Amino acid sequence: MLAKKSFASDNNAPVHPRILKAIRNANQGDYIAYGDDPYTEKAVEKFKEHFGKNIDVYFMLTGTGANVLGLKTVTDSFNSIITAETAHINIDECGAPEKFTGCKLITIPTANGKITVAEIKKLMHGIGDAHHSQPRVVSITQSTEMGTVYKKKEIEEVANFAHKNSMILHMDGARIANAAASLSMGFKKLTTDTGVDILSFGGTKNGMMLGEAVIFFNKEISENFKFIRKQGAQLFSKMRYISAQFIEYLSNDLWLENATHANEMAKILEKEIRKIDKIKITQPVEANGIFAIVPKKYIPSLQKKSFFYIWNEEKGEVRWMTSFNTTRADVHDFVESIKEVLRK
Amino acid sequence: MLAKKSFASDNNAPVHPRILKAIRNANQGDYIAYGDDPYTEKAVEKFKEHFGKNIDVYFMLTGTGANVLGLKTVTDSFNSIITAETAHINIDECGAPEKFTGCKLITIPTANGKITVAEIKKLMHGIGDAHHSQPRVVSITQSTEMGTVYKKKEIEEVANFAHKNSMILHMDGARIANAAASLSMGFKKLTTDTGVDILSFGGTKNGMMLGEAVIFFNKEISENFKFIRKQGAQLFSKMRYISAQFIEYLSNDLWLENATHANEMAKILEKEIRKIDKIKITQPVEANGIFAIVPKKYIPSLQKKSFFYIWNEEKGEVRWMTSFNTTRADVHDFVESIKEVLRK
Amino acid sequence: MLAKKSFASDNNAPVHPRILKAIRNANQGDYIAYGDDPYTEKAVEKFKEHFGKNIDVYFMLTGTGANVLGLKTVTDSFNSIITAETAHINIDECGAPEKFTGCKLITIPTANGKITVAEIKKLMHGIGDAHHSQPRVVSITQSTEMGTVYKKKEIEEVANFAHKNSMILHMDGARIANAAASLSMGFKKLTTDTGVDILSFGGTKNGMMLGEAVIFFNKEISENFKFIRKQGAQLFSKMRYISAQFIEYLSNDLWLENATHANEMAKILEKEIRKIDKIKITQPVEANGIFAIVPKKYIPSLQKKSFFYIWNEEKGEVRWMTSFNTTRADVHDFVESIKEVLRK
Amino acid sequence: MLAKKSFASDNNAPVHPRILKAIRNANQGDYIAYGDDPYTEKAVEKFKEHFGKNIDVYFMLTGTGANVLGLKTVTDSFNSIITAETAHINIDECGAPEKFTGCKLITIPTANGKITVAEIKKLMHGIGDAHHSQPRVVSITQSTEMGTVYKKKEIEEVANFAHKNSMILHMDGARIANAAASLSMGFKKLTTDTGVDILSFGGTKNGMMLGEAVIFFNKEISENFKFIRKQGAQLFSKMRYISAQFIEYLSNDLWLENATHANEMAKILEKEIRKIDKIKITQPVEANGIFAIVPKKYIPSLQKKSFFYIWNEEKGEVRWMTSFNTTRADVHDFVESIKEVLRK
Repeated sequence: MLAKKSFASDNNAPVHPRILKAIRNANQGDYIAYGDDPYTEKAVEKFKEHFGKNIDVYFMLTGTGANVLGLKTVTDSFNSIITAETAHINIDECGAPEKFTGCKLITIPTANGKITVAEIKKLMHGIGDAHHSQPRVVSITQSTEMGTVYKKKEIEEVANFAHKNSMILHMDGARIANAAASLSMGFKKLTTDTGVDILSFGGTKNGMMLGEAVIFFNKEISENFKFIRKQGAQLFSKMRYISAQFIEYLSNDLWLENATHANEMAKILEKEIRKIDKIKITQPVEANGIFAIVPKKYIPSLQKKSFFYIWNEEKGEVRWMTSFNTTRADVHDFVESIKEVLRK
Repeated sequence: MLAKKSFASDNNAPVHPRILKAIRNANQGDYIAYGDDPYTEKAVEKFKEHFGKNIDVYFMLTGTGANVLGLKTVTDSFNSIITAETAHINIDECGAPEKFTGCKLITIPTANGKITVAEIKKLMHGIGDAHHSQPRVVSITQSTEMGTVYKKKEIEEVANFAHKNSMILHMDGARIANAAASLSMGFKKLTTDTGVDILSFGGTKNGMMLGEAVIFFNKEISENFKFIRKQGAQLFSKMRYISAQFIEYLSNDLWLENATHANEMAKILEKEIRKIDKIKITQPVEANGIFAIVPKKYIPSLQKKSFFYIWNEEKGEVRWMTSFNTTRADVHDFVESIKEVLRK
Repeated sequence: MLAKKSFASDNNAPVHPRILKAIRNANQGDYIAYGDDPYTEKAVEKFKEHFGKNIDVYFMLTGTGANVLGLKTVTDSFNSIITAETAHINIDECGAPEKFTGCKLITIPTANGKITVAEIKKLMHGIGDAHHSQPRVVSITQSTEMGTVYKKKEIEEVANFAHKNSMILHMDGARIANAAASLSMGFKKLTTDTGVDILSFGGTKNGMMLGEAVIFFNKEISENFKFIRKQGAQLFSKMRYISAQFIEYLSNDLWLENATHANEMAKILEKEIRKIDKIKITQPVEANGIFAIVPKKYIPSLQKKSFFYIWNEEKGEVRWMTSFNTTRADVHDFVESIKEVLRK
Repeated sequence: MLAKKSFASDNNAPVHPRILKAIRNANQGDYIAYGDDPYTEKAVEKFKEHFGKNIDVYFMLTGTGANVLGLKTVTDSFNSIITAETAHINIDECGAPEKFTGCKLITIPTANGKITVAEIKKLMHGIGDAHHSQPRVVSITQSTEMGTVYKKKEIEEVANFAHKNSMILHMDGARIANAAASLSMGFKKLTTDTGVDILSFGGTKNGMMLGEAVIFFNKEISENFKFIRKQGAQLFSKMRYISAQFIEYLSNDLWLENATHANEMAKILEKEIRKIDKIKITQPVEANGIFAIVPKKYIPSLQKKSFFYIWNEEKGEVRWMTSFNTTRADVHDFVESIKEVLRK
């Protein structure tokens, strides 16, 4: 166990006790493998409660798996995928999107991790010209890799532009719970109602052990997804153990409690950090991540106190993440340890 | 829960209580994600205890993922992979090997799921000829998809031939524990000592919740596997929850107890089935699977009593699997229900 | 230049003088590259004269390119492609189909290179089951790699079965001219009218310098082929030099004269070989190839006299091909040289 | 035929008469296909005369084919390829590099199509970190897509940096002849002697009918290229017809004459254009391309007079190319037609 609560990643947290209990309760007797079991049936129903009846949902093992297989479903290899330069699919998946789809990623530099229609428009070149990859998907992340959150209207604008140009809107929702909590808005309003076509829905970063879902808001595009999931090595045999987690996660607001708490802890951390002159927060804190420029000479000592990741080496920008199990005391201790180092 | 113990698949069984307890015990505090944690370190040590010091081992999420990424590591797309017609990589992975590697699979029809040097030899055509896929891997399954087990010497022969022809020996060990138990032989003797180059080591079918490993017996070939695993969407973030399972699985003979028990149940089932005139067992029962030809007219009624898979529709051949949680009473009830149907 | 006319391959022949002249005539002034030129327009019209108005045709550089990009157009990576074990796409393209499509090839052993509905039926397993590659294409070769020819009715039967099972019929027509000549039937009767969906139309083996075409008989499936061709590296910049060849090839029966002549030479060669006791012809000679078993001890001496390929080393089966430029004297000399060796 | 000489692309030119004659001369008798013929042997020798003895050279059908198969040879799918934003491999190959290699392309915005070590350095992030694509190739184009030319020293600097960082230097030499002519330097000095590892050598844009070559300057990396070429559908059967072209192209300075002439015509065109106030040349004219900003309102009329491509719609930047068959009169007429339009 790390000596202190980690602010390096929400992936470092343990599993929420209610999730663990749900797993234990599911451990009774035999069930047909590969998802043909009552847990999975019930979990699918839970998703429909949150996203509406007309979705098609599939459970996956990793966020990268959810992203790349969702993208593969709607692309041919001559397509391109438009996304933010900072997108997880662009920088944190070791080229999995290119490998799985054969597509080109076309990236947009952004100030805050969010892309706009104005920027996408500039990339709409060479449509119909055989020499150029044909844009087919716009992929956005909610909440973004920079800790910011797309507003409902911002998503709608991108969705409308995408659809008018025969493109698909993909949302990487590894932290969609944090966005929904931040906006005080249900999942449906943020996705189904805005025109999102495919969503990677993440559970692992918000209290689950593992479990991601790909949600299709149009069943025509998901017609063959069961084959794509199996061929993509993302079909879990003992599916009930993911399904049982999702049932619990989506019941009695567990997802919301966890995300709301993580966001609150980020707000408190932000407030304290803003009091420290030498540190400059670089992004609006809208979810559970804080980005800040710290004088470079202090970074190694800070990391030794409590490990975290450097986001941009040149600028000395770092990333701190809170999670469902971060406590006020953890934030306090973390801030104190920063102050101590900066005093030196 | 299925009303009765399932003989359809060892994947239908729940998680062994000791495994579940290990998961619960690991659920304390924060740990660095993606495998840089002490559970994973200890689990790797456990593997080295069983397989020898010179291995390189990586944890994976699915058996298909383990197989195809192991194969990708040692092939280029112009290679071919030689395997049994009945191999899981050939018939049960929805073409994942072709998709991930680009290679051609060349298959050998077998009587019992095992391939021999004599048969491989016949496929060694066109070596060095640019028009033909170049054989690079021989892949065998231990225990096989037909419930049979390669003897140590049989593996050595295939390994020697492979190495003499600049090929790699890959072993799909989704049920390697059942083979080891069947032969009363440790893992090392069956793999490291026989010349296996890459092993997919399965835990999910023998009492774990999820968790597979790819073991390389030559560190030169695994040099870049960490990138291949991540790009292949098989890098689990909260790795400690697989590692904790492996630690328990490989300690105090849990793997051996489970596999020995499953094999014994298969032997008992075999003995009872042999007493039934109308049913003909088609394969030697050497691990935890039984293959039998049942008069076709009875099959639907039997499946209604207790679901299982038809292996070969034309022949009326069915497959029954036992697992760590099969009891003598389960076998007894199953046999009685068969007899009852056959009396009609 | 080879000292003697080669019976090794129709690929060894030079370019027909009329084709060369057409190239020379096209070498005047500037034209827009990549196919937006009047030669290409006219060549497309020529194809429509032969195949009917409703085709969509694209020119390619190699037969392998034509095959694999045609197949890619109608498959997703989780599909399988059913073909004869002897098919060029299976044994002579170094795994290009698997690399370009990600699909599994499922092969049918045949006596004469032709597959039938009865054999395809046996492979229609696991439809709709996520664990298995889903059959999507049946690919046949006309004339076959064994020198035989599908009759019109045989093609229709395969086409009907394919379509009833939501599959596509692909024809590798690297030597379709030889088949058409053999059956005294125009291209349209053999393809458009039989239900072929995609045809690789070959010119290189019958007098052209280079030039293959992919013909789609249903424009819906070819909607995106121009991107697939470019991404597949098969879009020729100075397209007029292929188009000019096709115009000539498809005019005034050049294709038919060449193919008819090659077939006739094969018939004469067959007749002479049948007189030689020690040699056994193994396939009906229906196009421009002859397969024969020759006592193994003579083969090296024969190859020294005039090089040809051994088709099956175990059986001592060899392949002899005739081409548009084979003369009666060439056949006579070849037969005499065989007799001379066999006398020893 | 286009009414006037085209300044749209050097691909629009016909074949040089000496090349056509070489093709005609090669059209005698039978030769073994697929490159096992004396023309190919001699063409390889010609390449060695120009590039040194230690190269390994393979003939290809398209420039895209040459680029992507060269890149595939030295990459694994988890690698990235660093190149200029304007590179042909990035914008003009419909995503072929991603499809063939699975790699990510990482692009550098440039002023003049050339990349420098300083810019590459900034991209060397996350080396050894499994979450990020690992840089493996730097790809430069000589002469560049912007009509500029890397100096020998500039190539050496990139090569040294690449090699120090375990990377490969790839050069897209679709117009390498124009660069060599521009620098008055032989091929060897520009490639073998500078540290280039793989070269796509283009002939089609400088007077050949078709024919590209991939040259490896280190035989270890090309060990398996013959399989990659065949699987990549770039192995030409009647190889002698490309080889004969290369023999002629590389003899008696045909390549140099053609390129020198094209470059001279570009210089003359540049001189005349600089006299026109309303047009602003945007790039140094170092090879056979001219980039210029033309007031947008004139562009459609100009294109009607003589078609050319708009390079950057927003800026109104156009591209004009000269070729081996451009005459002084063509340049004069083209300039006059521009002046005429601009007067309106």
